[in-house]
Amino acid sequence: MLSFQNDYQEGAHEKILARLIETNLEPLSGYGSDLYCESAKKKIQTACDCPEADVWFLTGGTQTNQTIIDTMLEPYEGVVSAETGHVASHEAGAIEYSGHKVLTIPQHEGKIDAAELETFLRKFWEDGNHEHMVFPGMVYISHPTEYGTLYTKVELENLSAICDAYQIPLFLDGARLGYGLAASDTDVTLPDIARCCHVFYIGGTKVGALCGEAVVFTRHNTPKHFLTRIKQHGALLAKGRLIGIQFDTLFTDNLYFEIGKHAIAMAELLKKGLADNDIPLYLNSPTNQQFLLLTDEQAERLKHDVVYSFWEKPDEDHTVIRLVTDWATTEAQVLELVQVICTCLKNS
Amino acid sequence: MLSFQNDYQEGAHEKILARLIETNLEPLSGYGSDLYCESAKKKIQTACDCPEADVWFLTGGTQTNQTIIDTMLEPYEGVVSAETGHVASHEAGAIEYSGHKVLTIPQHEGKIDAAELETFLRKFWEDGNHEHMVFPGMVYISHPTEYGTLYTKVELENLSAICDAYQIPLFLDGARLGYGLAASDTDVTLPDIARCCHVFYIGGTKVGALCGEAVVFTRHNTPKHFLTRIKQHGALLAKGRLIGIQFDTLFTDNLYFEIGKHAIAMAELLKKGLADNDIPLYLNSPTNQQFLLLTDEQAERLKHDVVYSFWEKPDEDHTVIRLVTDWATTEAQVLELVQVICTCLKNS
Amino acid sequence: MLSFQNDYQEGAHEKILARLIETNLEPLSGYGSDLYCESAKKKIQTACDCPEADVWFLTGGTQTNQTIIDTMLEPYEGVVSAETGHVASHEAGAIEYSGHKVLTIPQHEGKIDAAELETFLRKFWEDGNHEHMVFPGMVYISHPTEYGTLYTKVELENLSAICDAYQIPLFLDGARLGYGLAASDTDVTLPDIARCCHVFYIGGTKVGALCGEAVVFTRHNTPKHFLTRIKQHGALLAKGRLIGIQFDTLFTDNLYFEIGKHAIAMAELLKKGLADNDIPLYLNSPTNQQFLLLTDEQAERLKHDVVYSFWEKPDEDHTVIRLVTDWATTEAQVLELVQVICTCLKNS
Amino acid sequence: MLSFQNDYQEGAHEKILARLIETNLEPLSGYGSDLYCESAKKKIQTACDCPEADVWFLTGGTQTNQTIIDTMLEPYEGVVSAETGHVASHEAGAIEYSGHKVLTIPQHEGKIDAAELETFLRKFWEDGNHEHMVFPGMVYISHPTEYGTLYTKVELENLSAICDAYQIPLFLDGARLGYGLAASDTDVTLPDIARCCHVFYIGGTKVGALCGEAVVFTRHNTPKHFLTRIKQHGALLAKGRLIGIQFDTLFTDNLYFEIGKHAIAMAELLKKGLADNDIPLYLNSPTNQQFLLLTDEQAERLKHDVVYSFWEKPDEDHTVIRLVTDWATTEAQVLELVQVICTCLKNS
Repeated sequence: MLSFQNDYQEGAHEKILARLIETNLEPLSGYGSDLYCESAKKKIQTACDCPEADVWFLTGGTQTNQTIIDTMLEPYEGVVSAETGHVASHEAGAIEYSGHKVLTIPQHEGKIDAAELETFLRKFWEDGNHEHMVFPGMVYISHPTEYGTLYTKVELENLSAICDAYQIPLFLDGARLGYGLAASDTDVTLPDIARCCHVFYIGGTKVGALCGEAVVFTRHNTPKHFLTRIKQHGALLAKGRLIGIQFDTLFTDNLYFEIGKHAIAMAELLKKGLADNDIPLYLNSPTNQQFLLLTDEQAERLKHDVVYSFWEKPDEDHTVIRLVTDWATTEAQVLELVQVICTCLKNS
Repeated sequence: MLSFQNDYQEGAHEKILARLIETNLEPLSGYGSDLYCESAKKKIQTACDCPEADVWFLTGGTQTNQTIIDTMLEPYEGVVSAETGHVASHEAGAIEYSGHKVLTIPQHEGKIDAAELETFLRKFWEDGNHEHMVFPGMVYISHPTEYGTLYTKVELENLSAICDAYQIPLFLDGARLGYGLAASDTDVTLPDIARCCHVFYIGGTKVGALCGEAVVFTRHNTPKHFLTRIKQHGALLAKGRLIGIQFDTLFTDNLYFEIGKHAIAMAELLKKGLADNDIPLYLNSPTNQQFLLLTDEQAERLKHDVVYSFWEKPDEDHTVIRLVTDWATTEAQVLELVQVICTCLKNS
Repeated sequence: MLSFQNDYQEGAHEKILARLIETNLEPLSGYGSDLYCESAKKKIQTACDCPEADVWFLTGGTQTNQTIIDTMLEPYEGVVSAETGHVASHEAGAIEYSGHKVLTIPQHEGKIDAAELETFLRKFWEDGNHEHMVFPGMVYISHPTEYGTLYTKVELENLSAICDAYQIPLFLDGARLGYGLAASDTDVTLPDIARCCHVFYIGGTKVGALCGEAVVFTRHNTPKHFLTRIKQHGALLAKGRLIGIQFDTLFTDNLYFEIGKHAIAMAELLKKGLADNDIPLYLNSPTNQQFLLLTDEQAERLKHDVVYSFWEKPDEDHTVIRLVTDWATTEAQVLELVQVICTCLKNS
Repeated sequence: MLSFQNDYQEGAHEKILARLIETNLEPLSGYGSDLYCESAKKKIQTACDCPEADVWFLTGGTQTNQTIIDTMLEPYEGVVSAETGHVASHEAGAIEYSGHKVLTIPQHEGKIDAAELETFLRKFWEDGNHEHMVFPGMVYISHPTEYGTLYTKVELENLSAICDAYQIPLFLDGARLGYGLAASDTDVTLPDIARCCHVFYIGGTKVGALCGEAVVFTRHNTPKHFLTRIKQHGALLAKGRLIGIQFDTLFTDNLYFEIGKHAIAMAELLKKGLADNDIPLYLNSPTNQQFLLLTDEQAERLKHDVVYSFWEKPDEDHTVIRLVTDWATTEAQVLELVQVICTCLKNS
């Protein structure tokens, strides 16, 4: 059975496992104060071309979003997000649980538009009743988005300028950042992100780690007593080494970028395979998540051969499915997948 | 340099690492729905002699305490704990962050007394103003306690009976449970705990795992939509396999108990070594945490040779330090530690 | 200067003040346990034709919405509301502060549509990922809505049936209920509301009281230990008599309904006066809030003679204003208002 | 039947009611922006000899404590209080509901001791693990305390100096402040309180108002967007005039102080009457709350003639009761109360 369900279906990249074993018996201090965390932070600062960045390690995506948003916002503030933003729709209300509203604006293939954002912010401040409303206190974007799409450098710069003008942070959810950085046509680099965003995170869980996300505060803007607040959120790992060692490995010899490139190559192989067979994709995603529009019957039939993710139902008779490549995907698997899809579609 | 700082200073037991590597490339479903989580749950049910137990996996201790307490309490309820309970004093207010008060009662070497608990609960309900107060909605104990001490079976049964009488759950924090179960003189078994407690957790992080705690609900009393609430707490791991595989390994061939036994043997070797040299311990802990009363000067000198934990200052001139053994402690390290302590104390 | 700014710009109906004075020196027990609260509850039960209703008194609208929603929802649930619902947009995030998401669906002149609600609820439960999302746990409607509009009896019955089918409560925000019940064309009575809604409140603040809202639970569904939870929300008044006496008065000799009728008569006088002068209203509101579309210049000019509420800007050059009548509005004031508006519009 | 149950058993002082009637039909802007609120603020600034004080009006005591504490603390901070502090024990967990721990220190007849406070704060900062604990972020005292006792000016100055040294605010709960200021032997004035405290409130509910507490920030330290946060707490009154007019009246012609003096005179009459009959009080309270130690049998018998508050049971056979005077208590009532108590005690 082929499995293209998601990018967290395997364990970890072999180099990470090897490093965990090598360091296993070294006694290290806890809670992220060990030397591997320190080393990883330095390497991330370098990769971001931001030597003054504050880097922190958390365990998973929703936890990271909740912790960053809750600690950077004032209690009277909410976070602005696309309607399809992960924080708006797929985190079980973790943001509201921490007391903050998600203020939604329209999405365009998962992205927000700078002009629409500016209008939203301007109208809030113009409204005579705004003291009775939730203050927009941060802008959340995901890159790649939930649809696999990417912002351009200019788009990021525009969003950043608006945030600066309104003196609120731009927060980039990089759960799949490795795949975004490795996309063929992107002009966005990690230093660009560090320059444009006030805070962002470099996803590990979906990019080859067992778990772990690296949060980067780029403007000396780490919330006060952040360690205490992480603990208060139940998010402080006793064996902080677990994440430190993983990120130290990911940022050694460009491993993080190599993982991204491999998954993108596999996604492009898939796209080419489908194109060669005149099978159109649902939207043009430049990253490792690809979306296919099937009839319900085709979607049902495909289940016999491939584990995929159900994405959404655009109408009564059709289903959009998601196929995801990652660091562990092989060329043989992709070629077989193309075969299986072709057979499935021809028979309908 | 010797290090007896805590029981989470190393990585993981080698069998766990080996198993992570073996299973690494298997594509598995996420969020704890994989076959290793299932297998681990069954093994834990068996070890608890409680085939109907609901078992869930979380990442760390404070997260587990917060999630259990918040989801099992009604909003108008607080949790009763010893003043020295971890939830009362060392979790950065994580319980209050989730909206609940910690209602403290006296501690006796870290333990609570059944009669004092009963009086506390009775007085609450007798008070004519109790609707203006926080309802005691759960009893929290740790076993071993923060001082390494243990409840006896009769003590647990008494606490359990009181909780049943007041219809509130008894919750046992087993962050170091493996060391408690392996103590020489304890009459408490894992099935005893499952029988007496409405909910408890089997600590992994401090007993040989990279991370992970196994929560056991013993009375079909898992909070409704618990997965959603775990996610809301930012505590749902995408790669649930990471904890499932570890607990599956810990509960194969008695590994969890073997780890406990080893650490207890090392603690007893330390106790004997000190006793042979007429060096008294601060209190009689039957588990892997041992406490030593030193002059401030001795404590300072000892730092040159041993990494230990500062515990508390009983007066102006003395310091209590904590020395902890674990699955990775070797006999040679303990013997050297005894030597070092003897030398340090003689020279003062 | 005329003032039609809102329906809480004066103090209280004279009968209420008279009753406060009469009862002033009677020593009464606190926190809503006095005889006037009891008497008011009985009268409200009778007026609702719901002898088993549980009635509670709170102080203001946002407080009431927050307390009801937070105490009736499970922590993993959110409340479904029109985008324009007061709880969605004008309560400073009070619902999110209490941990719950407001799940918005489209509005039609302030109302939600039963079919759209049903689709929303059905899709949630059909979604394979719904355990990662916020559960719809209650439906919130306002009656009159924020636009002064009203549901028909059939519409209420349909919403009620959907809520019953999905086993979630229908909550009606009746901050201005008195004006809704008194509208000329409505077929909705207070007993209809008690029959259709699982919980609702009868607004006092905006209908002649100094403060106070009467919450009615119609299905023996008062949240457990509700008094304690009211106190936890900071919403328990020591002198509960203050609200009890006011509602006892409002529900004596039909005062609540008389107040409503008077304000509606004044609103109709205003509508007729404008119609007679061919001045169209922005939308057809059957209650005490009327909306007028002006050019920005007209809106500015009108400020010299009338205090009104700015409502919204439909485009760059226009402004919608709100004019509100209440129990204290006089015929002379309305006639003068019509005059003033005519003059203002003619001069432009 | 005599009633000395509490100081909120009647309505409001007649001058307040008269003023509500006089102003009733004036249309005023909402949410505390009216001219009576403005006027009351000015009079309070003057009475406090603190022209720059920020004054805000809230509705009740628990609401005020919750709002002040939650908005002035950082999320990682808790409030230090005597074990018997109202916020620690009798507010249904309202502080914890807002996410903050109450850090308790010992009480001495309801008061905290400056030296003990200093030790508590110093030890926190000395503790190497304090980042895993709740930061003390504010000191809460009540004046009069829950036992009717008062701080001296020197005691207040000492507490204030400690708070300044640790850069945390001193918050004084003045729910019964009027009675404290009027006590015979106190050397504490309202300007002293404004000088020593970073924030405090002047209680209205228990000192002659229908409801209302006036919060005074003395150091330009109103939390940012405080109006929005009040609303978020469900604590923003639409008809802010209700409290503004009451405080404007209370601070006209010394009414607030006259009310206090009257209640104290009545309390002293009671004390003298009991002393003349050799009936000792439980503790020496200088304010309007007096405590009497009775056998359970006496306490039961007294219920036939007097409504009092049960206070506590010091042992199995005795009961402490509370007798409270207020602005409405008459000399005749006090004399009759003394008679009734004498008769009750003689017959036992």
